[in-house]
Amino acid sequence: MTAPDLTQQMFAGSRTALARILTKVENSSQGADEVLRSLGNRVGNAVRIGFTGPPGAGKSSLVTAYTKLLRKQDKQVAILAVDPTSPFSGGALLGDRVRMNSIGLDPGVFVRSLATRGDLGGLSQAAGDMADVLDAAGFDYILYETVGVGQSELEVVQYADSVVVVLVPESGDAIQGMKAGLMEAADVFCVNKADREGADRFTGDLQGAMMLKMWDDWKPPVVLTVATRETGVPELAEQIEAHLAHLRTSGDFDKRRHAHARRRIQRMLEKRLVAQFWTEAHTQTMDKALANGESPYSILSSLLKN
Amino acid sequence: MTAPDLTQQMFAGSRTALARILTKVENSSQGADEVLRSLGNRVGNAVRIGFTGPPGAGKSSLVTAYTKLLRKQDKQVAILAVDPTSPFSGGALLGDRVRMNSIGLDPGVFVRSLATRGDLGGLSQAAGDMADVLDAAGFDYILYETVGVGQSELEVVQYADSVVVVLVPESGDAIQGMKAGLMEAADVFCVNKADREGADRFTGDLQGAMMLKMWDDWKPPVVLTVATRETGVPELAEQIEAHLAHLRTSGDFDKRRHAHARRRIQRMLEKRLVAQFWTEAHTQTMDKALANGESPYSILSSLLKN
Repeated sequence: MTAPDLTQQMFAGSRTALARILTKVENSSQGADEVLRSLGNRVGNAVRIGFTGPPGAGKSSLVTAYTKLLRKQDKQVAILAVDPTSPFSGGALLGDRVRMNSIGLDPGVFVRSLATRGDLGGLSQAAGDMADVLDAAGFDYILYETVGVGQSELEVVQYADSVVVVLVPESGDAIQGMKAGLMEAADVFCVNKADREGADRFTGDLQGAMMLKMWDDWKPPVVLTVATRETGVPELAEQIEAHLAHLRTSGDFDKRRHAHARRRIQRMLEKRLVAQFWTEAHTQTMDKALANGESPYSILSSLLKN
Repeated sequence: MTAPDLTQQMFAGSRTALARILTKVENSSQGADEVLRSLGNRVGNAVRIGFTGPPGAGKSSLVTAYTKLLRKQDKQVAILAVDPTSPFSGGALLGDRVRMNSIGLDPGVFVRSLATRGDLGGLSQAAGDMADVLDAAGFDYILYETVGVGQSELEVVQYADSVVVVLVPESGDAIQGMKAGLMEAADVFCVNKADREGADRFTGDLQGAMMLKMWDDWKPPVVLTVATRETGVPELAEQIEAHLAHLRTSGDFDKRRHAHARRRIQRMLEKRLVAQFWTEAHTQTMDKALANGESPYSILSSLLKN
């Protein structure tokens, strides 16, 4: 089937066409660019929410509970879950069994896993492109779910309109060792598993830590949840909506989206420039110089002179 | 002081000059390129060993114990520790107290922390450049120490001649959730804290998992250590040397270094190409198109046409 046909079927509501397009776009395979360009102004209506945090914080359960709530409001929800796979462990790690039981059969929900990949920046580009497809396909909410431990994983949620950083009462030490940027990325903090010991103290510490930081006009609220019991989820949803409303009234919504688009363009362009540069001749120049024992720095100079 | 003067002082053995050059190179500040180009064929003598693994595996203690052993062999050792800092927690996380007490005053040891930074690829570039400086300054061994949780952190050790993946008996579940690539990066596995319960079972599991994988002619050995008691460290050192010897006799040593140099050149070049592309005119074209609501894909097309 041609790309335009597939796209038409997707617009008409075909989930099979949607899944095939997503695969195409994820792998940047032939026709992917054509599809993306053809989405046109159908893109931009969906709200994109990022959920990130340390492993074991209960992100999947939380996203599931939040999805159920959105479904009660009759929203169409797509979930893009970043799945750290290791060829060593032999496949994907799906924390998805719970999810599949409760929302997997709901036709208003679409779940898709993305494998992390080798090239830096590739993950967030794929996630951004796939979100555009889901947006054009008519979903109201697109939820990114990703472990907040690596730079590329973090970059995924940074393309969201609103970012929920999910922590647990035991995260105290983890925060210290956490990837730079995780805490800074938060628009809403969620302390999940809040029925555990130490939740109040941790929440206090978190609020204390936030006082040390200068905020713009939005100070991330801290919401306590127990995702598996759906406790606190309506409050979380409220705070997400409050943040979105704040973005809209302040004009930051468009600013943020433009900033995201700018970053995406820069990344795509980078890829193109690099691909264009590495002609056969340049590659040969490099390999010859390497064989001669030249240093990377001098090789770089000669490559740029050509 | 001019860059050439500083470099001369570093070659003459000045640690102050070395430290200043490392700072320059880490920040890519003025004169950094000049210094790097002037290192010439002084680079290439040091052996580079990477230590990576999940947080809490005892990498710092292990690197310290290994350093002490290398010092007994009269080797000059430099340690480049990647330090996940968060502006939020207010500074660097130094697991360095133990280290400072046992090797901090030894003039044959030089320890330097690198902060992780926002831009993808920036970390490994800085680490590679800094290792070149340390190499030219005459260190025999350069040890990279980095948490194996993010792509950029992993990329650091991937520039090493030999990579030690440090795990603990409790890592079983962690391996599953581990960043793709950590297990694959290993030339030597080290099960640290091997006096803990479950060490034998975990080691068995690890060896079992390895049987599922196809290896080239080097199959990563598994060494059990208790770094804090320096148990198993001589065996670890032996396996590292065995791996290096294997690389040398098979001809893979140069192949690997060329591959690293190639990747570094590609990264540096990428940075330059991007910097050259973003003229004032191109930036304006992009911003105008964004304001008109054009999609990233169509903006990319028009930018590449100009």
